[in-house]
Amino acid sequence: MGKRHAENLRRLVPQAVLVAIADASQERARQVATELEIESYYGSLEAMLENKRIDAVLIATPDKFHAQGIQVAAQSGKDILCEKPLALNLADAHKALRAVSKAGTRLQIGFMRRYDPAYAAAMKRIEAGEIGTPVIFKSVGRDKDQPPLSAYQSMLNGMVFYNNTIHDFDLARWLMRDEVTSVHAFTTTAIRPEVAEYGDVVASVVNLKYERGAIGNVESYVQAVYGYDVRTEVVGSNGSIFVGSLEKIPAVFLTAGGSQCALADHFLTRFADAYLEEVRDFVNNILDGRAPRVSGEDGLKALAIAVAAEESHRELKPVEVTEEPANPASKTTAR
Amino acid sequence: MGKRHAENLRRLVPQAVLVAIADASQERARQVATELEIESYYGSLEAMLENKRIDAVLIATPDKFHAQGIQVAAQSGKDILCEKPLALNLADAHKALRAVSKAGTRLQIGFMRRYDPAYAAAMKRIEAGEIGTPVIFKSVGRDKDQPPLSAYQSMLNGMVFYNNTIHDFDLARWLMRDEVTSVHAFTTTAIRPEVAEYGDVVASVVNLKYERGAIGNVESYVQAVYGYDVRTEVVGSNGSIFVGSLEKIPAVFLTAGGSQCALADHFLTRFADAYLEEVRDFVNNILDGRAPRVSGEDGLKALAIAVAAEESHRELKPVEVTEEPANPASKTTAR
Amino acid sequence: MGKRHAENLRRLVPQAVLVAIADASQERARQVATELEIESYYGSLEAMLENKRIDAVLIATPDKFHAQGIQVAAQSGKDILCEKPLALNLADAHKALRAVSKAGTRLQIGFMRRYDPAYAAAMKRIEAGEIGTPVIFKSVGRDKDQPPLSAYQSMLNGMVFYNNTIHDFDLARWLMRDEVTSVHAFTTTAIRPEVAEYGDVVASVVNLKYERGAIGNVESYVQAVYGYDVRTEVVGSNGSIFVGSLEKIPAVFLTAGGSQCALADHFLTRFADAYLEEVRDFVNNILDGRAPRVSGEDGLKALAIAVAAEESHRELKPVEVTEEPANPASKTTAR
Amino acid sequence: MGKRHAENLRRLVPQAVLVAIADASQERARQVATELEIESYYGSLEAMLENKRIDAVLIATPDKFHAQGIQVAAQSGKDILCEKPLALNLADAHKALRAVSKAGTRLQIGFMRRYDPAYAAAMKRIEAGEIGTPVIFKSVGRDKDQPPLSAYQSMLNGMVFYNNTIHDFDLARWLMRDEVTSVHAFTTTAIRPEVAEYGDVVASVVNLKYERGAIGNVESYVQAVYGYDVRTEVVGSNGSIFVGSLEKIPAVFLTAGGSQCALADHFLTRFADAYLEEVRDFVNNILDGRAPRVSGEDGLKALAIAVAAEESHRELKPVEVTEEPANPASKTTAR
Repeated sequence: MGKRHAENLRRLVPQAVLVAIADASQERARQVATELEIESYYGSLEAMLENKRIDAVLIATPDKFHAQGIQVAAQSGKDILCEKPLALNLADAHKALRAVSKAGTRLQIGFMRRYDPAYAAAMKRIEAGEIGTPVIFKSVGRDKDQPPLSAYQSMLNGMVFYNNTIHDFDLARWLMRDEVTSVHAFTTTAIRPEVAEYGDVVASVVNLKYERGAIGNVESYVQAVYGYDVRTEVVGSNGSIFVGSLEKIPAVFLTAGGSQCALADHFLTRFADAYLEEVRDFVNNILDGRAPRVSGEDGLKALAIAVAAEESHRELKPVEVTEEPANPASKTTAR
Repeated sequence: MGKRHAENLRRLVPQAVLVAIADASQERARQVATELEIESYYGSLEAMLENKRIDAVLIATPDKFHAQGIQVAAQSGKDILCEKPLALNLADAHKALRAVSKAGTRLQIGFMRRYDPAYAAAMKRIEAGEIGTPVIFKSVGRDKDQPPLSAYQSMLNGMVFYNNTIHDFDLARWLMRDEVTSVHAFTTTAIRPEVAEYGDVVASVVNLKYERGAIGNVESYVQAVYGYDVRTEVVGSNGSIFVGSLEKIPAVFLTAGGSQCALADHFLTRFADAYLEEVRDFVNNILDGRAPRVSGEDGLKALAIAVAAEESHRELKPVEVTEEPANPASKTTAR
Repeated sequence: MGKRHAENLRRLVPQAVLVAIADASQERARQVATELEIESYYGSLEAMLENKRIDAVLIATPDKFHAQGIQVAAQSGKDILCEKPLALNLADAHKALRAVSKAGTRLQIGFMRRYDPAYAAAMKRIEAGEIGTPVIFKSVGRDKDQPPLSAYQSMLNGMVFYNNTIHDFDLARWLMRDEVTSVHAFTTTAIRPEVAEYGDVVASVVNLKYERGAIGNVESYVQAVYGYDVRTEVVGSNGSIFVGSLEKIPAVFLTAGGSQCALADHFLTRFADAYLEEVRDFVNNILDGRAPRVSGEDGLKALAIAVAAEESHRELKPVEVTEEPANPASKTTAR
Repeated sequence: MGKRHAENLRRLVPQAVLVAIADASQERARQVATELEIESYYGSLEAMLENKRIDAVLIATPDKFHAQGIQVAAQSGKDILCEKPLALNLADAHKALRAVSKAGTRLQIGFMRRYDPAYAAAMKRIEAGEIGTPVIFKSVGRDKDQPPLSAYQSMLNGMVFYNNTIHDFDLARWLMRDEVTSVHAFTTTAIRPEVAEYGDVVASVVNLKYERGAIGNVESYVQAVYGYDVRTEVVGSNGSIFVGSLEKIPAVFLTAGGSQCALADHFLTRFADAYLEEVRDFVNNILDGRAPRVSGEDGLKALAIAVAAEESHRELKPVEVTEEPANPASKTTAR
């Protein structure tokens, strides 16, 4: 992911100069720097932040280092574009936001789907009132290839709610222009029980309840062998908007066995434009002194939904969404 | 609905003779009998059951009379095809089933979607193992035109769970070849609050948990102004099957405003073939002395899911699915 | 085809009484009469026409008997619905039309696609001016299963232009509301050369030129193994209308190999509604004393296009469309 | 177009160095050079060719300057990627090819659709024999916005056959792996008669006949107000492959008026990937000393089809395809 961002910045966002790249493996940083003709490379974020030419940083580390990275970068006075999620728990999220606030720098969270042309067009029509009052939010996120078990062992990223579903949780807020107040999750590890040991799941359905009365459901599935499949629908009192397409290329093959299409297989293909637009928008806003379009607050609120979904999954009950870091007590009855 | 069944039987199922028709309004019964050239008509089911020429009856009354109708018809020794739902509560359902069992007659419940060519083809592929182990069940049922308030006042039919969603609850069992063990429902009346007075909802999302570990979600919406929209997906370990199409006619209109298609608007259009196949299959099985394909037990099990969904909606918690009639105690923690 | 019409008339057009059925094989006529509970059956059209109870006849014989059948039926004073084509040559067509005209009876030609809901909706929008001035007419007609060689040997039906493509030639006039003035055909027998012996082709592309300047192309193919595939497009100055769908059932199968749909396989499936509406409309117009909606003149004009297409195929040059029966001279340069 | 190629080369093809840019307007060349940080700029191709650092040139001038540009560049010993068409007549085409041949340089013609992922996938399956023997080739090319009359007046580019349809003529050869031997064209200017003065047309249908017996049809339309619409189908003895999609973004809007999608509007959007892949492939082949994938011969053969189509349009008869420059005699009867 970091490499893709670097390529976009280096080649397609001429208004920014990609000064340096850092990676826990300094050798890998060096290779990418060479390939992309970037002047400096470093073995750590901290080392890179010493570089006086840097005004802003893009953080695309494993999830568990996001919050700490934001803190360090903010303390160095940099503006920040950080991949989702903001953090893996609410306490860390608050720490990161406080650091940004104290430093007076700017933070954008990488909810790149907001920049996808299809989602953006959908939002425009929702804002124009074309579907009336939103009533139901639906989203499906399916990855093609299940993560290897080693990924669960290292746990550099959070469980599916924090890493994948959080995109849908952000869309759930953004497209509905409303806040989720409680959630209920059913999950399964039936076809891969070993995942349960690491506290993760293979598939989940999360019911949502909104402040203004609307409802929703988000499904996630990490091993849809047939393709990378993202679909979202906002159903309103006057119509509905459906975003999603499985087609990889616009070609249909007709044989005696039926019609057949090739399907999308990876998020970097489906959302290539979105990633580029995201970085462009961040750079433009920073250069023009404007606030980023997807704020740290947005990162916090999506995280709060993920945290509640995980609790519902663990506790087998509906859970209220709160931005307060967990304390062992209450919070058990959601309405 | 009764008229459609009568037309199908009279015109397209020559192996059955449609002897008589009954309606609470004897005048309406007379009109339909005249139009369809049916020899006898009656003002009540009871009166019609005196007719010695009748071997089997098809019940398509308002929902609240289903269970009682089944009892009476069974006591007269008739085989029965009854529209869904079997009953509006589990106690009535058991009474109806006991009457059928005691009389030794046969009962089929009108889950006509099982006869739809698309659902039937999906089931065939699932049974052939083409998608591997089912992991997630998803279904959407949206009606085009909201019921008038008078429909809620008379309450001849049950709330949306019993009347619409029950089709999806049946598919949830049939296509997954597994039983639903617990449910969680979020519902909304936000865009039509007056419906809440009658205990009904405008939209709902119901999470499902299955015996063998799979999960699911069923959405219902009673006023999707854009069309009649039914979609179902079974996601498995090796692939997924999606049933559903909005297109009313295969014509696309391309103008500077974009492409445009006419959408389906009514279940009698979408499922015309299914209703006919259902009646044909019932008649053939009865004539050949075979058990009906969709049993009273199927009616009971789908009803049990609806009852649990209603309780979850009322009690704001997950509810275990049980075929036992409600008793005021326990049953509050679902897993 | 005759059987399908008989079923429709007997079961779904109650305003008509299907009095009798005739077939060159009296035994087959008897069987169908028994199965459909029709009172009389005959071994020839002539014998049937003696029956005084008959007001109108539907002719669905092999193509080569159409014109003669129309003459005989007209001479008996019957109204007639005759399958397409009107005749296999213009001389016979004129004889048939003269007989109808002399007898003062009414004749409808079986261009059933005009009754298909999708084509009918397209026509309505064209008439409403929604696509502006029609500029290009395109049509594709592909049959799934190639005819057996015996069909060519018996030659009961004409070559593909008269039997299949004639539907497109009728649409070419009807949807464009203009007349075709000249045609150019390229044809092929490359993948089945034995067909050439019988003067027929496996595939053809026919360019069309219209009176008011528009242009068009019609493609036919008799062995599209993948399905029965009919598509038509009318391209106008303000938009375009596309009719056609390959999907047999609204179900999509998603596997690692891609998405897959079952395709339509037969015209009786694709156009089931159209055949029924056609017969209904004919019966209603006859009963109400109105002229049929698809006239003998329409039959003649579509035939004239087919005749010109065949000549273009034989003579390897563009050919002007004329309703005059062929005479050995001229007619060679089309503009 | 030249600018797009420059952007692709500068930003996304790091293995090439974009040394200089030339434009008839030196000021425009300067602007682009500044914007894209290109070291040199020139007011003519000839001036630019003096630059010793240049190994290869990409020509994207108006069509009428292509052949002359190729000659000049070849004489300077450069490898060349030239936009289609190779020339506007066969005499110029041969002159350009002779110059390249004499200079021993390499020439690629810009049939970028061969690099489109959908067309490339289609070709792969055709080559794998998945559709059996190709029988029919169909292609549709529709532009959204009609050219202004000034474009016809300046006539920097050829008529539609040379500028748009030539893409389809190239696909007609490439995908069918066969040569077109004769063509027949019907054209229209009915909705914009003033175009006829300049020898151009608004729409055309061109029938094709192939060496091995297959047939085809290519339609072009320059003012399809609804969108940029390119579709191609290769129909074979065992199946068919259809390439084409109108959808601009994967979003469907469902309202009481029906479903609605935004349509593609420009070839630079639809074929963005193809243009990039084309340039990449050219650069890689040149660097590795391989022959270009789309040769000057390919340019000549597609041009020959366009020339024949224009003659058929003018002479109102089928025309044989020949690579020989026109001589006033013969060539009138195509088979």
